[in-house]
Amino acid sequence: MTVSTLLKNKEQNLFTITQSHNLQDVCKILAEKRIGVLLVCDKNGIIEGIISERDIVKALGNSGNSVMAETVGQHMTANPVTCSPIETINQIMAKMTTGRFRHIPVVKDNKLIAVISIGDIVKARMEAMEAEARAMQEYIGG
Amino acid sequence: MTVSTLLKNKEQNLFTITQSHNLQDVCKILAEKRIGVLLVCDKNGIIEGIISERDIVKALGNSGNSVMAETVGQHMTANPVTCSPIETINQIMAKMTTGRFRHIPVVKDNKLIAVISIGDIVKARMEAMEAEARAMQEYIGG
Repeated sequence: MTVSTLLKNKEQNLFTITQSHNLQDVCKILAEKRIGVLLVCDKNGIIEGIISERDIVKALGNSGNSVMAETVGQHMTANPVTCSPIETINQIMAKMTTGRFRHIPVVKDNKLIAVISIGDIVKARMEAMEAEARAMQEYIGG
Repeated sequence: MTVSTLLKNKEQNLFTITQSHNLQDVCKILAEKRIGVLLVCDKNGIIEGIISERDIVKALGNSGNSVMAETVGQHMTANPVTCSPIETINQIMAKMTTGRFRHIPVVKDNKLIAVISIGDIVKARMEAMEAEARAMQEYIGG
């Protein structure tokens, strides 16, 4: 299964922010949309970074409440690992395990088109296993 | 593969907190240990809840900085879904997908023994696939 196949069945939720917003803005959007990361893009939509729940909690843990007024640019991960739509789910699993991250932006022709979470990967694997089980049952039954 | 098998290969990182600590305490521990959740236990080690990065960001997004002085008890998920060591990884994947959560406490004889993350699950699956590929190569080669 490829990233492209996974995206066909996934509700598209691509939310972006700019480097000049602050961490309180990030928290508001993450809470409202019930998501774990925002992609950081410039005014032309080119990806510059990614900011996650983990980045916010880390900043708060290290420096306290004052960080909430600091900018996305100060706390994002710049130049995150990305993937292309033709990569396989197994390749993405390997990237996430090695890099210890849970979200990966999908880039096609230098354009950001989606973000995939580790939850999406597990969901896709579950659905594939269920489909295989159904096919097997039908084969036995028929 | 069962939860028990996964735990054999996993570095044990079981960190707990009590309901009366505040969210700033939680952020400090999560940042220091580089983890995503703390288990909330009473003084006898009985699990009462779980508090995650998501819970903190949600509280900050909804109510702003003042929540950092509020207690774990006010923001944790009480009575979280748990699993036992004899459950399979596929069962855990199904629970995580259905419940949309990324961490599950492992309980044996009413005692909390570990916590498994969605990252652990993906890592275990990757390792199982690599082991299968090696076995296949050896079979073909031999």
